[in-house]
Amino acid sequence: MDKTVEAFVVGQEYLLDARLVKYDAIASIAHAKMLAKIGILTQKEAKELIRALNEIIKLDEQGKFKISQEQEDVHTAIENFLTEELEDVGKKIHTGRSRNDQVLVALRLYYMDNLKELIRLAKLFIKNADAFSSKYGSIILPGYTHTRKAMPSSIKLWTGAFIESMEDNIKILEFSLVLIDQSPLGTGAGYGSPISLDREFTAKELGFVRVQNNPIYTQLSRGKFEATLLHAMCQVMLDLNKIATDLIIFSMPEFGYYELPQSFTTGSSMMPHKKNPDFLERLRASYHIVAAQEALIHNLAGNLPTGYNLDTSLTKEPIMKGFDITEQSLGIAALLFTKLKVNKESCKKAMTKELYATAMAYKLVESGVPFREAYKKVSAEFK
Amino acid sequence: MDKTVEAFVVGQEYLLDARLVKYDAIASIAHAKMLAKIGILTQKEAKELIRALNEIIKLDEQGKFKISQEQEDVHTAIENFLTEELEDVGKKIHTGRSRNDQVLVALRLYYMDNLKELIRLAKLFIKNADAFSSKYGSIILPGYTHTRKAMPSSIKLWTGAFIESMEDNIKILEFSLVLIDQSPLGTGAGYGSPISLDREFTAKELGFVRVQNNPIYTQLSRGKFEATLLHAMCQVMLDLNKIATDLIIFSMPEFGYYELPQSFTTGSSMMPHKKNPDFLERLRASYHIVAAQEALIHNLAGNLPTGYNLDTSLTKEPIMKGFDITEQSLGIAALLFTKLKVNKESCKKAMTKELYATAMAYKLVESGVPFREAYKKVSAEFK
Amino acid sequence: MDKTVEAFVVGQEYLLDARLVKYDAIASIAHAKMLAKIGILTQKEAKELIRALNEIIKLDEQGKFKISQEQEDVHTAIENFLTEELEDVGKKIHTGRSRNDQVLVALRLYYMDNLKELIRLAKLFIKNADAFSSKYGSIILPGYTHTRKAMPSSIKLWTGAFIESMEDNIKILEFSLVLIDQSPLGTGAGYGSPISLDREFTAKELGFVRVQNNPIYTQLSRGKFEATLLHAMCQVMLDLNKIATDLIIFSMPEFGYYELPQSFTTGSSMMPHKKNPDFLERLRASYHIVAAQEALIHNLAGNLPTGYNLDTSLTKEPIMKGFDITEQSLGIAALLFTKLKVNKESCKKAMTKELYATAMAYKLVESGVPFREAYKKVSAEFK
Amino acid sequence: MDKTVEAFVVGQEYLLDARLVKYDAIASIAHAKMLAKIGILTQKEAKELIRALNEIIKLDEQGKFKISQEQEDVHTAIENFLTEELEDVGKKIHTGRSRNDQVLVALRLYYMDNLKELIRLAKLFIKNADAFSSKYGSIILPGYTHTRKAMPSSIKLWTGAFIESMEDNIKILEFSLVLIDQSPLGTGAGYGSPISLDREFTAKELGFVRVQNNPIYTQLSRGKFEATLLHAMCQVMLDLNKIATDLIIFSMPEFGYYELPQSFTTGSSMMPHKKNPDFLERLRASYHIVAAQEALIHNLAGNLPTGYNLDTSLTKEPIMKGFDITEQSLGIAALLFTKLKVNKESCKKAMTKELYATAMAYKLVESGVPFREAYKKVSAEFK
Repeated sequence: MDKTVEAFVVGQEYLLDARLVKYDAIASIAHAKMLAKIGILTQKEAKELIRALNEIIKLDEQGKFKISQEQEDVHTAIENFLTEELEDVGKKIHTGRSRNDQVLVALRLYYMDNLKELIRLAKLFIKNADAFSSKYGSIILPGYTHTRKAMPSSIKLWTGAFIESMEDNIKILEFSLVLIDQSPLGTGAGYGSPISLDREFTAKELGFVRVQNNPIYTQLSRGKFEATLLHAMCQVMLDLNKIATDLIIFSMPEFGYYELPQSFTTGSSMMPHKKNPDFLERLRASYHIVAAQEALIHNLAGNLPTGYNLDTSLTKEPIMKGFDITEQSLGIAALLFTKLKVNKESCKKAMTKELYATAMAYKLVESGVPFREAYKKVSAEFK
Repeated sequence: MDKTVEAFVVGQEYLLDARLVKYDAIASIAHAKMLAKIGILTQKEAKELIRALNEIIKLDEQGKFKISQEQEDVHTAIENFLTEELEDVGKKIHTGRSRNDQVLVALRLYYMDNLKELIRLAKLFIKNADAFSSKYGSIILPGYTHTRKAMPSSIKLWTGAFIESMEDNIKILEFSLVLIDQSPLGTGAGYGSPISLDREFTAKELGFVRVQNNPIYTQLSRGKFEATLLHAMCQVMLDLNKIATDLIIFSMPEFGYYELPQSFTTGSSMMPHKKNPDFLERLRASYHIVAAQEALIHNLAGNLPTGYNLDTSLTKEPIMKGFDITEQSLGIAALLFTKLKVNKESCKKAMTKELYATAMAYKLVESGVPFREAYKKVSAEFK
Repeated sequence: MDKTVEAFVVGQEYLLDARLVKYDAIASIAHAKMLAKIGILTQKEAKELIRALNEIIKLDEQGKFKISQEQEDVHTAIENFLTEELEDVGKKIHTGRSRNDQVLVALRLYYMDNLKELIRLAKLFIKNADAFSSKYGSIILPGYTHTRKAMPSSIKLWTGAFIESMEDNIKILEFSLVLIDQSPLGTGAGYGSPISLDREFTAKELGFVRVQNNPIYTQLSRGKFEATLLHAMCQVMLDLNKIATDLIIFSMPEFGYYELPQSFTTGSSMMPHKKNPDFLERLRASYHIVAAQEALIHNLAGNLPTGYNLDTSLTKEPIMKGFDITEQSLGIAALLFTKLKVNKESCKKAMTKELYATAMAYKLVESGVPFREAYKKVSAEFK
Repeated sequence: MDKTVEAFVVGQEYLLDARLVKYDAIASIAHAKMLAKIGILTQKEAKELIRALNEIIKLDEQGKFKISQEQEDVHTAIENFLTEELEDVGKKIHTGRSRNDQVLVALRLYYMDNLKELIRLAKLFIKNADAFSSKYGSIILPGYTHTRKAMPSSIKLWTGAFIESMEDNIKILEFSLVLIDQSPLGTGAGYGSPISLDREFTAKELGFVRVQNNPIYTQLSRGKFEATLLHAMCQVMLDLNKIATDLIIFSMPEFGYYELPQSFTTGSSMMPHKKNPDFLERLRASYHIVAAQEALIHNLAGNLPTGYNLDTSLTKEPIMKGFDITEQSLGIAALLFTKLKVNKESCKKAMTKELYATAMAYKLVESGVPFREAYKKVSAEFK
């Protein structure tokens, strides 16, 4: 193959594949066991393969298993390793398997681990937000609509919104986990395998709840499942975007409701006085990056006939970027709640009269005035 | 208010609101009942309001309830109607309510109805695809990867992929329904109400499973829930996009695997011989329109402080467009399966030798050749 | 054709086509003249056609030329009108033409008119911003980075940024106009016409600077040109988004730098005291809607083979929506500058010490201290 | 600063900055010269700085200038290097400058170089396409609309479309170059500099045609200019997407119109017979990646107040990704035209009767039949 073309076709995916070494090895172990079970491999061959695959897992933990550009991807790197170590036995591991289902199963395992990590972080976020609310919850501060003072709010109410929202986010994450918890291994290139495989066995070995039956559907679901995962991440990130937006504005000295931890802010190269909320701006912006990954996946998957197309393999970078950013962001946000302070004085000072206009109208309602009349009367006072 | 500015601010939303008349009236009935229950309205007042609101529902069914541009939205149109009919009593209906929670509850009811319709259509799709598969399933045709003949496939396999995928789509739709099944009514402008409302009562009246507690969260969830709904629709639409793409290509006379119903195709204004698959192209393209609506909602909701901002009200058009297109598309796709034909002869003729190359390699594997060796041998034959 | 399918295929485009009546009629007049010139029509026939087409233009001006759903689009509506009025002569107008080049030329003329309108509005914006700057320019107010006070700014500097940016926007709009100023008429369905047409003649008649030669390219450019136009609009809208964002924040009573015209703000249904900047929020949000249209067009045009595909015809709605919103928004923004006030007192009060920290550092630099040293010294004062 | 937070804030940008070393050094040289000219630096100091900066340029050429994560970006890495080498003199280089204008000018120079490279590649593409057309242009093959045979086309017509389109793309690229050819250096953090700088001088030194005057506009233009550049790249990529789509379909053995160079295709891990057009699929998909970068930049830049915000600095990755992919893709496409073959026999065989239906209708038109009548007659033959 032409070198320029090869570099183009391979792209940066071989670098991304570093994260998949463990998962591909684990899936290969299950595959080897199954091949032994159905008689394609002898028990001895399977054992040798499993030993070598466990060696790969160990090398990977130590950061010593490398994938070169020539190898193109983790799968070839592992197959080459096995062939070098075990010769003919290594050449047998790919029996009944295609790159197409091999990458699907490795990714599926990687996704599930990352979803679990996100759920863990979301729970940590709630725990920390809860502690923050316990500490500052009783402080009253202005509630805004249209970025204008509206009615009295409180730190408890504010924090509670994000807790309730994060609880719903966890539901979304858990649902996503259930949705993708199905084993694609054994569907070959997307049209099944000429030999009979025990798909239930590998599914069980790998801890999947069920088998993804239709081989065309396993290919079809690439791009679909990734979109669902990124959608779930977007929901988390939108909440963080809102927290960041609120804190950027209301920690301005002009408001002073919130005080950012000094160890979180940064200076300026030119202006000696600055304490900038860079981390909040990055949090805010990160939402858009994750949302863009979901949109990209929607577009990569469109207008393609059934059956594997290389296009969907390019969902690898966006989904991995999504996990990286969301995990890091959620971690930072959870940490933030342990350091963020509320300035009671500033909040109190900001509780000006107009915030009670609605309550005034309702006083009149209680004395029998129809709401629209009461509204008009109070309204006149604020002209 | 300046007329030009007003037209700008109101936009086209008052037209979209036609779909919400029923839902706003239903929610207003529940609200009136609750106001009577907690003593804000007398039973007589509540009764009058309910009667008038039922009249609105009837007018709406007959297409006779109109919302003018001056009224700006369905809520003002209804409030005006009530005030005209009932005078002071009409002015009381808005007690304990804000446009902000009023629109949320009307939309929530509208969404839930539309989700149910989508689930119904998805089931119809599966039923029809199943019948199609019963009829043509046994026909063998080429399976493609990289848009190149790969291995033998069948109509059963092809249809089965979309059935299994649609089953997963239904799970997504059902989960979305569960997620949003919470009543926002009673959260006012986003910071609760100065008077104590019975939110459990209205939630129950309206058939919600639970109350959405935090009033800031109800506002926060605008844009979030809409994104989840559109994401679910995207998943449905992606499958239809793939069906359309397959059929556009493989119903070309050059392949002839599928035959499109004559009553579905269109001619050309210049070329007398044409039978164009316009409906499939529109189906294909519609996916992108729905995906764009989701992306738009992601972007409308970003970088905004908590509390209601008008920006999120602009999610109304994209979500309604999403439902319209997805329902129509899913209906068309379900209908298509009742008319689509498979040409057995063309399929058979297309089953050329290379489709069996993998099977040939596996024959060698069975005779003991390691897979990679077998692969190389067969490969040489196709050079 | 099946009725459900037909409704699906036709969509809402026949309604959008109302804007194209004039342009299609004008292009048809040029086409008729050309057909007469090359001898396909007699002079008498051409004259009759031109008279009838001018009648259509007049009817359209009076809002009396309607396109029904059965007619599907403006082109059929016009052809039907001509055939009814002129019988056989009407049936000749489509000679040498296809819907495909007919719609392209009508759209091209519509685009060019709208681009000119945008340029006019952009100039009006600059004029009004300039007058605003003349009035308030000398007022000093805080300049912010990271939403934190940074250095002294002024109304002149702030307004000047948008003027300079809008000047660049005008360059983008003018370039877009030059780019698309090429006649697609005469390229038929995308592979030319079996008869020899005088394309230079119609191009000149319609005021195009040049002919778009390659018929496949005329089809290819659908989606491309629309993206360029929407990109230009996005650039305008981004500036308006920034103006809106600045004004929403800095007209908060907590800052009070800017005072929004009363006639631009709106109240709340529940809170009697509110003056909400709805129009600014809509301006801010409108940017995202226009940006979403560009993204949608990028996606509609992808993964399609050459030659006309219905998919690209669905760019009609997004491009029209883009023009509508951008024109309206730019008009509102230009108007705003004639009414917006700056509160000198609030600005002055906000000019606190830290805004001069950089200047203090530079005082030290002038006395010979290296910048990084001076920076550190001043920085210490603000710890 | 907290370590976790720092890693979050810095992100991967320090890695991307490797591409900017040269440009930052060049801009720093111009800045040093200017500081000497206005008397802030002595001639000797300027000379030392320039020498050290040239050393950096040399180190960078040899791949030896590294930016560590602690340094955060290229600017600190360079400033540190200078301070270590030159002590106090190194501390003076940042006089009259901020990171904000420093990064803008480095990026601007990087953009301009890359735009020129894209223009060079676009011209190469045209040259190679032209040669391809000279070789195969006379071959007639079917032209398609709606993915259905429409009318006769030719290789010349097909190639010509992309040549004409690429010529327009070059106009877009050249316009983009003109638009951004303005020096931001000297605008400090976005509100100018407390000392008087000679901005004309540095602009001239760096080869800019003009100065970007307003300092707020220089910040405002971040995100704007990047969007314009990515838009231009999208236009290039859309053409390549279409070429890829055409070739993927029409090089299928079922059509056989085009023959892909063997050295460009890849095999399958499971199916021994495959020759997959991976490079074309990647080309097709790359369009979506570039389009997603533009959309991301649109979203990153929205809803932010004027003045620098960290959010816009996150446009660095998308714009660099855009350039990388577009340059690589355009290079591959240009190369492809030197290797691609057309199979005359397959093309000829595909020229079936219906492709001449339109010509048949026009034969009747020539004999005096009105076009719509002729159309109907011929149409009947193809029922």
